Amino acid sequence: MSSDIPDSMVEVKAFLYDVFGTIVDWRTTLTQELSSFATLTSTRISNQTLLNKDWHSFTQKWRNGYKLYINSSNSRNAPFLTVDSLNEQILENLITEFDIVHLWSDEELENLVNLWHNLDPYKDTKPGITRLGVKYVNAILSNANVKLLVDLKRSADLNCFDYMFSAEFWKCYLPNSKVYLDCCEMLNLRPEQVAIVSHAKNDLKNAKKLGLKTVLLQRDDYEDEDEVEEIIDYEEEPNGFGGQANHEFDLIINDFEELAKTMAC
Amino acid sequence: MSSDIPDSMVEVKAFLYDVFGTIVDWRTTLTQELSSFATLTSTRISNQTLLNKDWHSFTQKWRNGYKLYINSSNSRNAPFLTVDSLNEQILENLITEFDIVHLWSDEELENLVNLWHNLDPYKDTKPGITRLGVKYVNAILSNANVKLLVDLKRSADLNCFDYMFSAEFWKCYLPNSKVYLDCCEMLNLRPEQVAIVSHAKNDLKNAKKLGLKTVLLQRDDYEDEDEVEEIIDYEEEPNGFGGQANHEFDLIINDFEELAKTMAC
Repeated sequence: MSSDIPDSMVEVKAFLYDVFGTIVDWRTTLTQELSSFATLTSTRISNQTLLNKDWHSFTQKWRNGYKLYINSSNSRNAPFLTVDSLNEQILENLITEFDIVHLWSDEELENLVNLWHNLDPYKDTKPGITRLGVKYVNAILSNANVKLLVDLKRSADLNCFDYMFSAEFWKCYLPNSKVYLDCCEMLNLRPEQVAIVSHAKNDLKNAKKLGLKTVLLQRDDYEDEDEVEEIIDYEEEPNGFGGQANHEFDLIINDFEELAKTMAC
Repeated sequence: MSSDIPDSMVEVKAFLYDVFGTIVDWRTTLTQELSSFATLTSTRISNQTLLNKDWHSFTQKWRNGYKLYINSSNSRNAPFLTVDSLNEQILENLITEFDIVHLWSDEELENLVNLWHNLDPYKDTKPGITRLGVKYVNAILSNANVKLLVDLKRSADLNCFDYMFSAEFWKCYLPNSKVYLDCCEMLNLRPEQVAIVSHAKNDLKNAKKLGLKTVLLQRDDYEDEDEVEEIIDYEEEPNGFGGQANHEFDLIINDFEELAKTMAC
């Protein structure tokens, strides 16, 4: 069966998976939960005012705030914060922007931050990654802090992962090179034996520069994320990765079941 | 039910488990595997010579070598090495001591080091810790490097753990205080909300000094380990922990099923 595996992937022994937008569907879960919570608490102010808020936009801005911060931190303009602390700060800014200050108590705000600990996996995540586990090591690699990953693993029953690497141990954010290379070393593998799987093209490009294999997971709900990527000023190699997607990445897949099949599992 | 939990343990939200001798039975598995492997390779030298070796003693000395090294390293006399590297070095010394140099190839020696990646769990480990998982966070905390823990998790099907903390991230060995306290912080818990579970009394005493709760797991096969503990010169508080076992530790248990019952799971 191994002869069916694409040439670029035959050396791979382990997969490192991005979490938000790759493993779990933050956008759908958070938009629904925020909207439901807003309805529940709408009697505290004018019902109409709160129900008219665009919770999809609120969710997207929450995520954008995180992306802008880690990019700034990686450029040494901001200190390392756990993703939980960061999500809390961004939420506080957003409730000012959305003109709903004083609507929710401190405890309710904490519960809203903890929504990130209870996201639903995409439906292909568990069956696909479980199949991959028969032949390969499956590990999460995320900027999320350990507590967030532990809660996510418990709430979504993510037993299909053999390990969960958190950037919290390095006190810096991905796509920092040291994190990728240390993960390979800790798995006792060379970079070309490790594949990063992510919906985020820029994260993959950074990993590719270090010699890791790259798998782009195309999630339908990410078509509208171009706007977000543009606001982040990633450094690009002048001679790198232009043109066709199949020159940019070692593999492009639509879901984890397809990845399992492609890797002969 | 929570009123049945011992007073000293009511605050506990998470358990951190020692691995070798607590979760997995290194002594039985390794002694059997070494003895079988020696029989298989005995035709290379005088059959009698190899079969007469005391593989129980060989296994115990392998473990003692590890304990002596980490104690020395913690006293700043030796650099940090992964447990895999350390086990490899100690094995090389042992084959000289046991007069079996040149018997095994480099590949075979590597396979022998990897026996530590494939140990059997004690029979109460999985059912007991799975029960505890209903109410508590279960995490491994070990000096073992990440690769060793990942292999152990895969080979022994240890899905009952929510996280695996490895001292490899800190580049120092337990019972280093920083490792215990960082684990508590990463779990977003105060030290008194975290209980260490181990068969090793000295590791528990160090954790207790930091405010963590301590659970001594009495494993029958550790009755003969007093000799090992004596060779290690742990620092003791002059006024600490003397006398009755029930003053030394917050809980003493005989297996994980008993711990689950005691913690009202």
